[in-house]
Amino acid sequence: MPEIKVGLAQTNPVVGDYENNAAVIHSVMAQAHSEGLDLIVFGELALNGYPLGDLSYRKDVIETGERTLEDLIAKSAAFPALTIVLGHAALSAAGRPGIQSSDAIATNSASVFSEGKLIGRYDKQRLPNYDVFDDWRNFVPGSNELIFEVAGTKCAIAICEDIWDQDSARGEKLKGLGVELVIVPNGSPYTREKSVQRRAAAKAFAQGISLAYVNLAGGQDELVFDGDSFLLDSTGKEIVTAGLNPGLYSKFNTAEIEGDSYVQLFDVLVIGLRDYLQKTGQRKVVLGLSGGIDSALCAAIAKEAVGSENVTGVLLPSRYSSDHSLSDARQLAQNLGIDHRTIEIDAAHKAFESSLALSDLAQENIQARIRAVILMGISNSEGHLLVSTGNKSEVAVGYSTMYGDAAGGFAPIKDVYKTDVWKLAETYNQIRGFDAIPSNSITKPPSAELRPGQLDQDLLPDYELLDSILALLIEGRHTASEIVAQGFDAQTVAKIDGMVRASEWKRSQGAIGTKTTSIAFGRGRRVPLTTRFGEL
Amino acid sequence: MPEIKVGLAQTNPVVGDYENNAAVIHSVMAQAHSEGLDLIVFGELALNGYPLGDLSYRKDVIETGERTLEDLIAKSAAFPALTIVLGHAALSAAGRPGIQSSDAIATNSASVFSEGKLIGRYDKQRLPNYDVFDDWRNFVPGSNELIFEVAGTKCAIAICEDIWDQDSARGEKLKGLGVELVIVPNGSPYTREKSVQRRAAAKAFAQGISLAYVNLAGGQDELVFDGDSFLLDSTGKEIVTAGLNPGLYSKFNTAEIEGDSYVQLFDVLVIGLRDYLQKTGQRKVVLGLSGGIDSALCAAIAKEAVGSENVTGVLLPSRYSSDHSLSDARQLAQNLGIDHRTIEIDAAHKAFESSLALSDLAQENIQARIRAVILMGISNSEGHLLVSTGNKSEVAVGYSTMYGDAAGGFAPIKDVYKTDVWKLAETYNQIRGFDAIPSNSITKPPSAELRPGQLDQDLLPDYELLDSILALLIEGRHTASEIVAQGFDAQTVAKIDGMVRASEWKRSQGAIGTKTTSIAFGRGRRVPLTTRFGEL
Repeated sequence: MPEIKVGLAQTNPVVGDYENNAAVIHSVMAQAHSEGLDLIVFGELALNGYPLGDLSYRKDVIETGERTLEDLIAKSAAFPALTIVLGHAALSAAGRPGIQSSDAIATNSASVFSEGKLIGRYDKQRLPNYDVFDDWRNFVPGSNELIFEVAGTKCAIAICEDIWDQDSARGEKLKGLGVELVIVPNGSPYTREKSVQRRAAAKAFAQGISLAYVNLAGGQDELVFDGDSFLLDSTGKEIVTAGLNPGLYSKFNTAEIEGDSYVQLFDVLVIGLRDYLQKTGQRKVVLGLSGGIDSALCAAIAKEAVGSENVTGVLLPSRYSSDHSLSDARQLAQNLGIDHRTIEIDAAHKAFESSLALSDLAQENIQARIRAVILMGISNSEGHLLVSTGNKSEVAVGYSTMYGDAAGGFAPIKDVYKTDVWKLAETYNQIRGFDAIPSNSITKPPSAELRPGQLDQDLLPDYELLDSILALLIEGRHTASEIVAQGFDAQTVAKIDGMVRASEWKRSQGAIGTKTTSIAFGRGRRVPLTTRFGEL
Repeated sequence: MPEIKVGLAQTNPVVGDYENNAAVIHSVMAQAHSEGLDLIVFGELALNGYPLGDLSYRKDVIETGERTLEDLIAKSAAFPALTIVLGHAALSAAGRPGIQSSDAIATNSASVFSEGKLIGRYDKQRLPNYDVFDDWRNFVPGSNELIFEVAGTKCAIAICEDIWDQDSARGEKLKGLGVELVIVPNGSPYTREKSVQRRAAAKAFAQGISLAYVNLAGGQDELVFDGDSFLLDSTGKEIVTAGLNPGLYSKFNTAEIEGDSYVQLFDVLVIGLRDYLQKTGQRKVVLGLSGGIDSALCAAIAKEAVGSENVTGVLLPSRYSSDHSLSDARQLAQNLGIDHRTIEIDAAHKAFESSLALSDLAQENIQARIRAVILMGISNSEGHLLVSTGNKSEVAVGYSTMYGDAAGGFAPIKDVYKTDVWKLAETYNQIRGFDAIPSNSITKPPSAELRPGQLDQDLLPDYELLDSILALLIEGRHTASEIVAQGFDAQTVAKIDGMVRASEWKRSQGAIGTKTTSIAFGRGRRVPLTTRFGEL
């Protein structure tokens, strides 16, 4: 294989924002040309944004993308000797194979163009339809090979899921056709295991062909595309690794704290919140500060996402709040340099009590809901997005108040287990070089403080145990009896399993938040609210 | 074709409730036998409940179903000369065709059995993957034909979506194989157009073969399976029509008010709420009564769903409430015979005002949120499900307060446009024979009464116009420019389109409610929250 200079363009498109997406693509093309590259590769649907969801059914959304593509092809005339591979959606002439019905009208494609001319188009063949992915719903599958030459190198394209197909031996077929470089545009969302999985899939697919893996980089609703692009040579050796666009996104390069995946996880959470805000035209956030670890970590994420000056913390003490809840929250706000204010909730609490007879549970919930009324009042009055601070352990067992602490426009840590929340807090303090999150918030026993002396562990098992069981139930998809067979207490497992099932309705109304695990609560997990399958 | 006696069993399974689902199936088998039937046909996944969603990935959910099936097969020995066709999920031996990845482990099948023995199994071939359907995600497709004889009649099976496939000419192939009766188990949810569409699909498929169409009948989360089973003879003539299980479900047979689809729609809304409550083990509902038409209609639906004695209406007057809002609400409660109470919100309103500076919008929202705090307080204390009363027009444009009037466990009319809300109210009064819903609630101009003299039409166009534009945008999937080309005012269309797009985040946290149209807000409509495609 002759020498070829390849650029991996990790862009961060906004769904449907053709003007800005194309402007970024154009400037990257210019840069690639000025650096003397032969080939520049963009991610999956880099022109349209990914995932499009059911917007893929809108003819105007697809057609406007195609017009924008034509314009970019024309502009490529200004960059001689550069070949561009760009992911985009295209109206499909062919229908869907007869195997099932669909409303899809477009393919998920990549076009190859150079010097003002279209060389060809490849349509994604393997359309994922699991987890968060609805590609099979939203697109028509392709079946063509596109083989073309760049700087003397024979190239072909596979898009994202195409390379996860180990059965079809397509890599070997491409090799048989003389292909030397497989170009792989991706829209591959972060999970904590994904980096390793991507490389395994790419190596298994390539089989002696060089491979250029290019991912998007940025947040889109509950997904964070974490870049992590790479180049494999023909022996499968990784010769370029792009990381998570340091400088553009990450203030804390993973390499700084060797081997610590929590730094990367923290970065991803920051990007998820920041891009949701930026891409929806918002800048400021508000959140309640309880003095506890969840709100402290969310405040730290918010500060890194939008800057201290755009974060407002609100202390909302009740008659049951401990002294340390206020002092820890104030210390946190001071350490992070964020605005904070204190609003007592007791006057409102008394007003409700005087008009309403409340059970014990209702007494607890009403405090959380009064706080939500105040926080949403600030949100509506001052234009802040309310950050919901619940973690995955709480969301899983429904340990939250609907329209109370569950309220908010974005929930940064909803896919982070409590035991990982602690580790992230420690990691953040390590990054910052001091106890930005007060050590007392990390070490004290978790409490919602909705009644005197209340602790999370009154109702829940120890978080280490809880999270182990939850991970087996949710990401592991193990049944309760399988988990008991692993040595866990049957009564505890049954209780947790029951709590998870009983809170589906709560999650169905939950704020979106960044996916970090293989199965997050959100679009990737679709279960009925109405079920009875307790005693299988 | 010799004479054959066929029973169409419209059962109402609960997802995963094998014990009760099987008990119902067994009793229907016994009845069919005692009535001398040759064949009894159940709906799609009648054993497991439909849709299973991602529960289809759980091996224990599938295996428990298979064990229950074996038990029913054994019990069929007691009913000689009766053949049973029962829909159920089955662990798949074969994998998925290589075309795309999936986590699916099971087929969506129907087993045929008689006199204690399994005759054969058919696996659904065409797996829908549009609208609310995730069959392609959740199941492995089949490819076998199952041809068997019942009482001298040659039969084959097609499951639901299979008969919507007009391309494969499978009906003709079956005819060529000598098949005289196609048996079609369905899990086909109600929409207002579906009854006509089903018959068209069945007739186009059958092509001279007799056809037994059997649907489930009952609510499952946001879907109502509306029965509507039928038998076509070999000329395509409908010789039996089952309706919506009158007696079991519908108090008001559609036939009573000739040709009025609003009676059927009302029935469906009642069933949706009732089955959500029953199947999740709830009995009582609470809702705010504003004196307006939406809460009035929801109260009527609730009364019919669970009985007057299980409905609590709460009047929550504010400083801006008009006299008629209270008098109309009281009259409604009296007419429906439901419990009602009045709780003033001004004390809480003042408490919040004293601690918080509020913008005009926040002033409005806070009243709606105080009401939600009170209603959820009653819900938590007394065990009622809170009914959210928003209609589709409001939900579409985001004309609601998050964690305020949007709060609730079920939203019965979220897929009913405002103009249809009025028609349903009139229909209900016609059914009841008097103005159960006070005529003043029907005729007065809609208002949220969150500031003095406020009317919905201050912000929104007339509801007739609004609903016309919304139906084109949402169900019609027309673009704004296409709608303008139909003669609508460009500025109005742009405003409405913008409001729909800006409120995706609100809908993403909305309560579930019964689907009545071809595209309802819920699982059948999956669009990103983060988009910019305003000016295409």
